[in-house]
Amino acid sequence: MTSDSADRVWIYDTTLRDGAQREGLSLSIEDKLRIARRLDQLGVPFIEGGWPGANPKDVQFFWQLKEQPLTHAEMVAFCYTRRPGKKAATDPMLQPILAAGTRWVTIVGKSWDLHVIEGLQTTLDENLEMIRDTIAYLRTQDRRVIYDAEHWFDGYKYNPDYALKTLKTAIAAGAEWITFCDTNGGTLPHEISQVVQTVLKQLEPLSALNSQALPQFGIHTHNDSELAVANAIAAVQSGVRMVQGTINGYGERCGNANLCSVIPNLQLKLGYACIQSEALAKLTKLSRYVSEIANLAPDDHAPFVGLSAFAHKGGLHVSAVERNPITYEHLQPDLIGNSRRIVISDQAGLSNVLAKARSLGIDLNRQDPTCRQILKHLKDLESEGYQFESAEASFELLMREALGQRSLPFEIKGFQVHYDRVPDGETLTAKSLATVNLAVNGQDILEAAEGNGPVSALDAALRKALTNFYPEIETFYLTDYKVRILDGAAGTSAKTRVLIESSNGSQRWTTVGVSSNILEASYHAVVEGLEYGLMLQAKALVLS
Amino acid sequence: MTSDSADRVWIYDTTLRDGAQREGLSLSIEDKLRIARRLDQLGVPFIEGGWPGANPKDVQFFWQLKEQPLTHAEMVAFCYTRRPGKKAATDPMLQPILAAGTRWVTIVGKSWDLHVIEGLQTTLDENLEMIRDTIAYLRTQDRRVIYDAEHWFDGYKYNPDYALKTLKTAIAAGAEWITFCDTNGGTLPHEISQVVQTVLKQLEPLSALNSQALPQFGIHTHNDSELAVANAIAAVQSGVRMVQGTINGYGERCGNANLCSVIPNLQLKLGYACIQSEALAKLTKLSRYVSEIANLAPDDHAPFVGLSAFAHKGGLHVSAVERNPITYEHLQPDLIGNSRRIVISDQAGLSNVLAKARSLGIDLNRQDPTCRQILKHLKDLESEGYQFESAEASFELLMREALGQRSLPFEIKGFQVHYDRVPDGETLTAKSLATVNLAVNGQDILEAAEGNGPVSALDAALRKALTNFYPEIETFYLTDYKVRILDGAAGTSAKTRVLIESSNGSQRWTTVGVSSNILEASYHAVVEGLEYGLMLQAKALVLS
Repeated sequence: MTSDSADRVWIYDTTLRDGAQREGLSLSIEDKLRIARRLDQLGVPFIEGGWPGANPKDVQFFWQLKEQPLTHAEMVAFCYTRRPGKKAATDPMLQPILAAGTRWVTIVGKSWDLHVIEGLQTTLDENLEMIRDTIAYLRTQDRRVIYDAEHWFDGYKYNPDYALKTLKTAIAAGAEWITFCDTNGGTLPHEISQVVQTVLKQLEPLSALNSQALPQFGIHTHNDSELAVANAIAAVQSGVRMVQGTINGYGERCGNANLCSVIPNLQLKLGYACIQSEALAKLTKLSRYVSEIANLAPDDHAPFVGLSAFAHKGGLHVSAVERNPITYEHLQPDLIGNSRRIVISDQAGLSNVLAKARSLGIDLNRQDPTCRQILKHLKDLESEGYQFESAEASFELLMREALGQRSLPFEIKGFQVHYDRVPDGETLTAKSLATVNLAVNGQDILEAAEGNGPVSALDAALRKALTNFYPEIETFYLTDYKVRILDGAAGTSAKTRVLIESSNGSQRWTTVGVSSNILEASYHAVVEGLEYGLMLQAKALVLS
Repeated sequence: MTSDSADRVWIYDTTLRDGAQREGLSLSIEDKLRIARRLDQLGVPFIEGGWPGANPKDVQFFWQLKEQPLTHAEMVAFCYTRRPGKKAATDPMLQPILAAGTRWVTIVGKSWDLHVIEGLQTTLDENLEMIRDTIAYLRTQDRRVIYDAEHWFDGYKYNPDYALKTLKTAIAAGAEWITFCDTNGGTLPHEISQVVQTVLKQLEPLSALNSQALPQFGIHTHNDSELAVANAIAAVQSGVRMVQGTINGYGERCGNANLCSVIPNLQLKLGYACIQSEALAKLTKLSRYVSEIANLAPDDHAPFVGLSAFAHKGGLHVSAVERNPITYEHLQPDLIGNSRRIVISDQAGLSNVLAKARSLGIDLNRQDPTCRQILKHLKDLESEGYQFESAEASFELLMREALGQRSLPFEIKGFQVHYDRVPDGETLTAKSLATVNLAVNGQDILEAAEGNGPVSALDAALRKALTNFYPEIETFYLTDYKVRILDGAAGTSAKTRVLIESSNGSQRWTTVGVSSNILEASYHAVVEGLEYGLMLQAKALVLS
């Protein structure tokens, strides 16, 4: 992979290695393979897969990739410079790196004298030799090398001469890329610019002297000062041509540079080429896919790719943005595969309802009196504490009901929940039991189930009762459950809003229930969740 | 409030207005008052409270603040320029602004010709007159004015001459601050710097010509490009002296500039004075307090104030950071009231426990083995999802238990909750019944009560059972009830954390319960709330 266009920026994804350092994030080999293939499809040129040897998982990951290699991307193995006092050729740490069988290897080394002396407890000269020996050895083994200069900005601040020596050593040994790392995440954008510009100038004569090609440069930033994206951009504007980062900004502490923000900023605002335009239009999907695999709730407020990133409230706003998007949108959401969302809130006007109906594929016109009915019903429910901003499935059911398009797949006649708790010596015996009474196609059903707590017992009883009639219910599961007390000062009689997100494996939908009684609110949301899922299923049958 | 130091940056908090635009965030008047008082204590000089007149809640908020004004901060009312074709003096929109009784008013006006013509559907001249008339009228009413130039950067890009005219008009009419707003959040840091620097130069001659003092300048940024903090910093470095933002970066779409990152960056890294150092050391607490009130899960990965912001993982890293913090920390966490978290060691925890004990008037020393016991118990509970940051009453009970100082005023032997729901024609018949079984001073009591829902039935039964023994319980009431689902993906079996705030009329205390069953979690918090109230009462008797 060579630079053939002056305004290309190489994206280097490290979600699988540095991203996986995030507290609470754990990826299986299968997870890592799936993410790698999606990144490959997106056209990310470098994907750092892990540190083979640091743990058995990473060794196996690279081994599996050798069986079924990626199509376009270079898979990169990551490793430290060899250990002090050893030889690269015989340091066992480097053997799994070679065994991983990648064309590219990233070697990270120390730039900061303090870390050499206090961290590695070796001499400054030995650190230089570790850098040289490791890279030179990998070159003899036909590997191409990216050199990550750890703690670059801190090191350069405290001892610029030594820091510069480490880079010259890496370049002389054959590194093709040098990455400036802001490992602790404390550097500000103006410092990034100053240091990168100065260092690139300081290294220029090297090329002439050594009659060797100067490598290219990259940036690796962390978000400890909420500046990772700005720092990456500042470095590119100062001359680097590779950005290392992660999907959704995952990473230890406050995370790494978020590629979901770096890429659109560089490509759509600054005109650099990072990935194909068609690939860019899949960025939102990729972001949600990765959060799904990582089992982390997607950040609705994430720039560019979040559910709320292009959300609009209130009447005037909505009509303005529909007339001319640039009035309230900094870029076109579809360029990154996101979409404009008209938020159904208590500021909702008629145009919101119409826009929402359109987006749901419901034909409705302003003159239709149903339109005002829906709006009135919406406002009444909202004043009771309902909120449809995130519960779009409940809103669709409400709309279809007004239009006479809602067919109830079942009817609940009543339910009972019983909870019994008896301390039994040291342990606790508690039992939740729910009984439901419902009708499907005129047939009465009585069913009971136990659960972890009263709500899960109720959920279990409903499913048990319905599965015979609607076997697809077995594929539905709850993916999120949120409870919000609306007027906390009313104590345990406060109004409660429950939001439930359900999935059938390929689609997700959210329903809402409100009551001064948490069981009642949960019941409402659970029931609408099941109903909506069945409606989706029925629609799919009609279309197929 | 005047500028008496060249390197001061005025912080302008708009959590209560622009922050509250975040989808899913809804603050009651009481919530807003509590946040305002905390910001006041922190020494934030300007607090934007809302738009009086836009909704009844904001009118009442300002009215309540007049009764009990803030100590240091200026509370600011927010409003648009008067409507086209009206007079400011008679536009009813401005009357609630004056009635709010604040010394400062922020007026937002259009800078972008496109928005004047397409949005307001008026002429460019009328927009200038709207700006002039509104500000001049407020000046005659003794108000001081901050002028927010909406869509400044877009407006200046498309029509710099007109944009500049709007500012000159605002200045001539008497605005003391001009805020450059990046309303759509699409501007990059280098553009912010260029525009701010150019515009400040273009406005300089004004001061000489008009023999009027030039106002000061501010910046208001949004995070749509993940650059809100960087943009605010770039503007300050280019000469502005006010930053508008919100706690935790709350705000519509992707949020506003996060003051929890802006303040430490400006103050600790760039040497600007924003708030007192002692106040800065309360920033982490403030961040969590606001998220608690907003009932939004705190972001553990938030820069500076997040739980993971200074987290270190095992091995070398830990010993290096313990020998010399700068090796892996970009600043000292205690400067902002955060703390280093060493995932494998509990060193930091021990001092927390000691500090906490001291603050509760409990004598405890580091050598005492009870200390480690408490810490261990605390960590166990925290890993189950307990959180004692706001539930100090529960923490005190836990501590007193370990010290053998907890005397149980009653013992619960068991309870049952029964909920029965039958639709009855159009109406719904639902009944919640709770039975409790407890012992006081060796005497067994069985009591039952009905309630609005299962939790309030349980609360009612407990009070009924205890009132004969402890009549003071009649003075206790619940002032807040919060429910948070900890692992939403587990659906209705998710872990639930309940926080209950109780009061006896003069004191307030908060208790916590965690369980995968909301009844169990609520029960735990309700019971500890009663116990703690009785303990306070007993203490008061001893002291009186």
